[in-house]
Amino acid sequence: MSGELRAQQLLDVAEELFADRGYDATSIEDIARAAGVTRPVVYERLGNKEGAYLAVVTRVRAQLEELMTAAALSVEDPREQLRVGIGAYFDYLDQQPRRWTILYGSSTPILGELGERLSEARFHTVERIVDLLRLHLTGESETTIHAVGHLISGALEQAGRWWIRNPDLSRDRIVDYSVTLLWGGLSPYVPDRPEP
Amino acid sequence: MSGELRAQQLLDVAEELFADRGYDATSIEDIARAAGVTRPVVYERLGNKEGAYLAVVTRVRAQLEELMTAAALSVEDPREQLRVGIGAYFDYLDQQPRRWTILYGSSTPILGELGERLSEARFHTVERIVDLLRLHLTGESETTIHAVGHLISGALEQAGRWWIRNPDLSRDRIVDYSVTLLWGGLSPYVPDRPEP
Repeated sequence: MSGELRAQQLLDVAEELFADRGYDATSIEDIARAAGVTRPVVYERLGNKEGAYLAVVTRVRAQLEELMTAAALSVEDPREQLRVGIGAYFDYLDQQPRRWTILYGSSTPILGELGERLSEARFHTVERIVDLLRLHLTGESETTIHAVGHLISGALEQAGRWWIRNPDLSRDRIVDYSVTLLWGGLSPYVPDRPEP
Repeated sequence: MSGELRAQQLLDVAEELFADRGYDATSIEDIARAAGVTRPVVYERLGNKEGAYLAVVTRVRAQLEELMTAAALSVEDPREQLRVGIGAYFDYLDQQPRRWTILYGSSTPILGELGERLSEARFHTVERIVDLLRLHLTGESETTIHAVGHLISGALEQAGRWWIRNPDLSRDRIVDYSVTLLWGGLSPYVPDRPEP
């Protein structure tokens, strides 16, 4: 088995344990046992527990970012970009409920190196939204575009938390609510939009 | 010293420790030592560590909710309610940076009873926003009002995270960005708003 493949399989195991048991209750020993390897193998591939957790979060965020960006860029109209990008996001939560726990589950504050890295990973996702906004908010400052990007990102995060608790609400309705509010919010910045 | 006063002082100490050291690195023993009392006194007033942390979070959220609601209800115009409510929120973050860490710092997932209670505390804050929205979104379903409430709450949460990292951005500008996006987003639901 190649090193890359082995690392991905270890990440699968670590992701499952962190999501199902929480961070505190998961050890490198648990990951090794569940993966059927020795602890040194886990340390070699993922580093220590903090490194393993960060690798799990980074992989989940990278997938989400790629799906959202690819979906948005598959169309040209700004409102359609918003709709299909948001649709891809909620589809990801819907199909990967365990990853939702990694992204948005309840949590307790963590400081130091891991806390800083987790913040960076969170901000990295916002930068992907900022990249998409830059295509349309051409007359606005970088500060404005970032403010809008963070507001949008946070809105969708909390909508995701709520949706997971309200599984009877259809995917299309949560997408509609999000698009309606955020497109209305973007209207001062995208003045030439055609009337719906 | 009254029991209530003592409990508040212990919460002050616990809040400081949880914010400065993180949840994992804080013990009931630490709280007792910092407060100059014995461990049984802490257990009696705050319960175990999970109870102490939940009490800290609940107190921070209750203050924030009260400030936001009181500010919003001090005016009548819907857009002004949005502006002064959001202003009260950012003022709170500005004046209480330690409490920002309790609310929004980096974190690792926690499951079980504490995780569930922390989610409830998070949703409780959204309900206060929902209460304010109900005053104006009179023709909308409860589901719609909750969707909007969660989108707004999340947008402001992430804007707060970003603002703490960009202290050069003035309070008035972050309020303006938030009001512009969220008022634009509310416009489909508040159709009779006067033109700005």
